[in-house]
Order: sequence, then structure tokens, then C-alpha cells
Amino acid sequence: MTFPQVEAFRGGDNLIRVVGHRGARGILPENSMIGFDFSLSIGVPLLEFDVVLTADDVPVITHNHRLHAPTFRDANGRFLVGEEPKVSSLTVDQIQQFDIGRLDGHSAYGRRFPDQAQMDGVRVPRLVNLLELVADPKYADACLMLELKSDPDLAHDASYRQKFVKCVLQELHTTSMSSRAVLHSFDWNLLEECQRQAPDMPSSYLTQLPDNADDIGEDSSKAVCPDFRGRHDEIPNLVKEAGGALWCPYFADVTAESVALAKKLGLCVAVWTVNENAEIGRMIELGVDSIVSDYPGRVQRRLSDLGMRWSATQ
Amino acid sequence: MTFPQVEAFRGGDNLIRVVGHRGARGILPENSMIGFDFSLSIGVPLLEFDVVLTADDVPVITHNHRLHAPTFRDANGRFLVGEEPKVSSLTVDQIQQFDIGRLDGHSAYGRRFPDQAQMDGVRVPRLVNLLELVADPKYADACLMLELKSDPDLAHDASYRQKFVKCVLQELHTTSMSSRAVLHSFDWNLLEECQRQAPDMPSSYLTQLPDNADDIGEDSSKAVCPDFRGRHDEIPNLVKEAGGALWCPYFADVTAESVALAKKLGLCVAVWTVNENAEIGRMIELGVDSIVSDYPGRVQRRLSDLGMRWSATQ
Repeated sequence: MTFPQVEAFRGGDNLIRVVGHRGARGILPENSMIGFDFSLSIGVPLLEFDVVLTADDVPVITHNHRLHAPTFRDANGRFLVGEEPKVSSLTVDQIQQFDIGRLDGHSAYGRRFPDQAQMDGVRVPRLVNLLELVADPKYADACLMLELKSDPDLAHDASYRQKFVKCVLQELHTTSMSSRAVLHSFDWNLLEECQRQAPDMPSSYLTQLPDNADDIGEDSSKAVCPDFRGRHDEIPNLVKEAGGALWCPYFADVTAESVALAKKLGLCVAVWTVNENAEIGRMIELGVDSIVSDYPGRVQRRLSDLGMRWSATQ
Repeated sequence: MTFPQVEAFRGGDNLIRVVGHRGARGILPENSMIGFDFSLSIGVPLLEFDVVLTADDVPVITHNHRLHAPTFRDANGRFLVGEEPKVSSLTVDQIQQFDIGRLDGHSAYGRRFPDQAQMDGVRVPRLVNLLELVADPKYADACLMLELKSDPDLAHDASYRQKFVKCVLQELHTTSMSSRAVLHSFDWNLLEECQRQAPDMPSSYLTQLPDNADDIGEDSSKAVCPDFRGRHDEIPNLVKEAGGALWCPYFADVTAESVALAKKLGLCVAVWTVNENAEIGRMIELGVDSIVSDYPGRVQRRLSDLGMRWSATQ
């Protein structure tokens, strides 16, 4: 089975794709409409982003399953303090009271993105806002890497998984975006549910080895990602067997051998989150299909300098 | 005489303005409409850019008085080689045959901007394109630092100066943008001509001391800027006497004393081009009015972390 949206992420002769991570987190507020606009406008039509379900069953675009204190400000402009509320405990209206336009530069997380533009009045988008944006004919080449984020407390609840997947698929169908999205997760149970409800859509398997450190200040993938200790070399086979079309490993986990094996199995290999020039260079040398980055312009610069392409029409 | 567009560049209590240099050269192709759009969209409504006159007397937005080889590609996608043609020798249609969407990463100039998004099909804008963009009511707070670039071969030709200023003013008047722009140059003769033709508009004096190095790969200011050797400490007085409203020194040239003197004289002090975090910090400490940067988001981040504002309405 060939999926056009999988081919959109596949590299080729002198071609490596660039994927805007949470829009372009290095440049603009993460998972914001202005960040997605930026990525699309610079010719990076592949967008990776995160979806969580609210208390009133609205899929919204935000990374952590709790409001992330260093990026959420209240109506008084103060970053959250104390326990972060869960997205699943708030309605979309309550969540949209918060402003996600700035980063707390005094937090370890905030210090990671010193170039990010700081804005006021930016709100968590609903999934449907982004789907409607890319439905514009001028973004006909846009494809979405839609990450379904599991709440670790609900990850083992089959009925919650069913509801979550159903709500996301409903919006994809309503906006005719099913053929433009890949369903992407660290949670293999959730991807199994995706395949059950949407056998006509491709699955994208995120992996991260437990020996590689978590990204500072973010939800850990380890709560929901299978533990591959002792099976490192088998990951592409396991993804293939599970019915995956894409394999999305943490960039530090891949080797020439694992990339070669994945490609031999027909998987499309998209590595994340590749921000430093040395790492970008190493991923280009390994010949991955796609590079997911907070700095999509930086990856374009590197590819351009090497005479490489990031679009099949270049 | 108080000019609203000068006050737009003036700092204040806990307030330092951010000015997008050539749009946002660190992030997007310089002096491009997409770069100006970016700066406006992140809440940086103050734009610095460069205007040169074509052979058919059209003011266009580009920095050097010759097509700049590391940023101009021909119809075959090749960066210019050999002698760069003069802007004043080509018509606007000829200039717009070239694509300015990428940087030659193999040039010293290109290496300065490793994060710049790389695009195809980007053209040198006409001045009027930008004037029409900021005439949109949603950009009512936008003000322009319009740099008139002298061709060193024509700088001593009074009739050429007259024509250049006249063409620029005509477009400002037609689009009702005279009250939103400051006329900005290294060439004091040209600014004198601006004052003669437009006594109702403020002048902005760029200066750079000859002992500070030129920026790599750019037209030197030294061909047209007065030589201040031996008169360093007097520059604010000289700007004031010449009728300036703004003083725009190279950031490395300013001292606490010169900033204090300029402010005492009522001048607005806008320093350029401030890109590194250490330099941004030093300019904030000196209490300049405005910081002109290729990375406006980086300056916002720094100001936000310090609890400072870059807009009077924040």
C-alpha cells in the first residue's frame, strides 16, 4: 500500500525533506498558528505537531499533557506556578485563556531557545484551525505529522484511546485531510487503535532509547514508549511488523546500519529533533529521509550549500 | 518640532525598541517582502531597509549599489560571477529577473547567516510594495527607517541627489507614508537634500568610525560617511547641528558618554546591527532608544527575560 502522505516525507536522489518541529520552535512560539504559517511560508510544507484532548473532547495542539509552565502565562501575564493543570481536566475555552506567546527565560526549558520571538495574545490552537489553514489551495503540498500524545495516566485505558483517536479522525475526515496526515506516536497501543479505526491511514512510530537523555523540560516519552533495551538493532523490524510506514527515531539513536535496515524494509526514516549544525550534517551523511528541526531554515541552508534539495519540485 | 515617527523609535521607562534590520536578515532573505512580513507579524513594526534607484528611476529595496553576488541568482539558479552590475544601470524589470531567495554559503558573506531560510522565486521589492503593505490598517503602528543608499560614483552629483530624493518622496506622498518614515543615510549631503525637499520629515544620521571594521561582504559606508577621526566625542553635536532627529551609530562606536550627550540633545539613538547576545546586553545597559538587529526575536527574548518592553502599549 502506498500512501501519498508517506511519500511526501521520503527522501531521494539528492533530496532530504525538512520538517518544521512544532512549527519552528527555535524561531516562533511552539505549536502556534504563527509558527505553522512561518514554516509553510518558507517552503517547508511538512509540519510535526502534538495533539492532546481537552475535557470537552476537543483536540488541541500542545505538547505536554499538562499545561507547560514555561510557555503558559495567565491573564496577568505570569508564567504558571505550582502544579500544572492537566489538559484533559480543562475545556478548550479554559485553555485558550492562557497566552503561549512567550517563553520563561529563567527556566531551563526557556534557555534552550534564545532566538524565539516573544509575542502577546497567542493561543493554543485547536487541531481544526491548522487543518483549515492547510486546506487552503496554496498549501496543497502540506502534509502533517500529527502526534497523538498519551496522557500517561490514561494510556492504559482502552476506551479513552478509542475516544481520542475517534475525535482526531473525525476532524481529519470533516476537513478532508486524512490523505495529508500521518498518525504519529510513541505509544504503540495508540497506533494500534489508529490502525483499527483508520486502516486507510499510515502510522508513524516514534522511538527513543532509554539510555539517551530526555529533552530538558519536556514530557518524557519513556512513560509510553516501549523499552527497546537489548533490541536496539531490531527496532526497524518491530516497526515494520507493527504496521508502520514511517520510523521516527531520536537522532542520536540511529546508525548507518539501522537506517539501511529501515530503508530496506521500505520504511521512511524521519529523525528528530535535529538542531545543531554538526548533527544536521551527520543526519545528511546517514541519508535519512526527513530531518525534523526547530530551525527549518538552518536545515535548508545546510542542504542548499551542499547543492541538495528538500522538495521534489526543486 | 516633534515627529510621531521619531517618537516611535524612542525608548523610555523600561522600554527599548526593536528594529528589524533588512526585515530579519538572520531568519529570512534580506530586504525581501517575506522578511518584512515576518518582522511585522512578530510585533516588530519598525523596519530598517535600503533604497537604491534603478536606471528607469524606480526606487527598489536592496542594500548594495551593485547587485550583491552572494544573494543574487540568475535564471539558471547560479549566483552571479564576475563584475556585479550596478543597480543604476538596470531597469526594475531586469533586476527582478534575479532571485534573491538564497545565500551563497560558500561566500564569506553567506557564512554570516547560517539560519537564514532558503527560498526560490523571491524578487527585489519596489519601495512601493513595502509602502503599500504597511498602509494596511493592521500595520498602523509600523514605521520605516528608509535608508537612501548613495552610489559612490554619483554621490557628488547634485542633480542625481535631487532626482533620487524626489523619486523617494513622491512614493511616500502617494502612499501617505511621509509621516511614518524617517529618511536615513550615511551621506550627509543626501540628508541635506532631503531636508531641502521635505522640511516636514525627520532625518536620521548613520555613522561609523573608520577604525571599526567594515561588515564582511557589504558596501562600505566609508565612501560616503564623513570622517570623524579626532571628532568622535562631537558626533551627537554634529548630528544635531545638521538637523538630525535620530542618530544611528554602529553599536561598537557608542559609549555611555556619547549616548548621554545624544539624549541630552534630544536625539533618538538607534544602534546597528546588534546580533550577538553579549552586544545586545551591552546596548540595553547603555540605555539606547532602539536596537537594530538581524535577529529581532533574539532581542525580544532578551528584553522579555529582563521584564522590559519593546512597545509602548505592552
